[in-house]
Amino acid sequence: MYEGAIQDLIDELGRLPGIGPKGAQRIGFWLLDQPKEDAERLAEAIIQVKQKVRFCSVCFNVAEDELCRICSDPRRDRRLICVVEESKDVAAIERTREFRGLYHVLGGAISPIDGKGPSQLHLRELLSRLADSQVSEVILATNPNLEGEATATYIARLLKDFSDIAVSRLASGLPVGGDLEYADEVTLGRAFSGRRAVD
Amino acid sequence: MYEGAIQDLIDELGRLPGIGPKGAQRIGFWLLDQPKEDAERLAEAIIQVKQKVRFCSVCFNVAEDELCRICSDPRRDRRLICVVEESKDVAAIERTREFRGLYHVLGGAISPIDGKGPSQLHLRELLSRLADSQVSEVILATNPNLEGEATATYIARLLKDFSDIAVSRLASGLPVGGDLEYADEVTLGRAFSGRRAVD
Repeated sequence: MYEGAIQDLIDELGRLPGIGPKGAQRIGFWLLDQPKEDAERLAEAIIQVKQKVRFCSVCFNVAEDELCRICSDPRRDRRLICVVEESKDVAAIERTREFRGLYHVLGGAISPIDGKGPSQLHLRELLSRLADSQVSEVILATNPNLEGEATATYIARLLKDFSDIAVSRLASGLPVGGDLEYADEVTLGRAFSGRRAVD
Repeated sequence: MYEGAIQDLIDELGRLPGIGPKGAQRIGFWLLDQPKEDAERLAEAIIQVKQKVRFCSVCFNVAEDELCRICSDPRRDRRLICVVEESKDVAAIERTREFRGLYHVLGGAISPIDGKGPSQLHLRELLSRLADSQVSEVILATNPNLEGEATATYIARLLKDFSDIAVSRLASGLPVGGDLEYADEVTLGRAFSGRRAVD
């Protein structure tokens, strides 16, 4: 629709997840209006992320060095490992400030539809971590959906061999601040079956 | 939240219009997963757009040369000029294939709230275009909102001096495919006042 460079940019932007044709056009023209340095800073950030970001050799979280910030922090409790699907989930859990242990990023979940099996996840590395270290608890924090549940069940079965390691799963239930009337049946069912005695 | 490069990228992406913190994070990690060449192609497109894209010296549409594709096309009807706010509007009208004349891109609309007055629009250039050429009709295709209407009214008044040029405005009315019951009062009112005899 447009000429050369602006259309090329709109096409490239349109490939990004969650950006439709209108959004790509809007961002394209917005960038055209920005000072040259601002646009170049974005371009540079994209290039840098591919050059600099690597994955922690222990937990597979995003890192800029051999080890990620969390694995290299001596104050973290090395007896706890929280298993998540993606680095994004590490960031989400870190924001809660509830967890002071280490992580293990699987790199996704078991999903036959997407052709993703257990061998494509960092499971072997998890097992060798557990064999080597003094871990006392593994918290399975995969997503509370079909793929995440399947992955958690699969890992829980693998971890049966480690008799001295407790395995737990994040609680399911009503989201805080939500309305009971709007909760779906599965969530409400989980909230019932997981109900706690009032102290 | 993240380390270095990935956080820098997420920050830069979060500045784009229509992209919130979650979207920026999603796009950032998506880019991290892409092949290096794909990410670099996006970065390059951003740099190219700032280097190559300029504005047509006649109509101020986006262009890669002195004149835009439309102004330099000999098959366009030079007696018609359609006045729009932005280059995006040119693309939208071109998609209809209803108009074969030329354009004039104002570079916005009169909007006192945003500190935008008539002197910041390409109005002087429009008037000198009209003085020089054999234009028979000017179609005011600014947006059907407050700023666009004010701009159209302002331009219509300016063009009173050109007694041999017809000035028209795009029709307002019900959007095709819409439900009458969901139309707002102003639109429905316009549809009434602009009603046409059935042939």
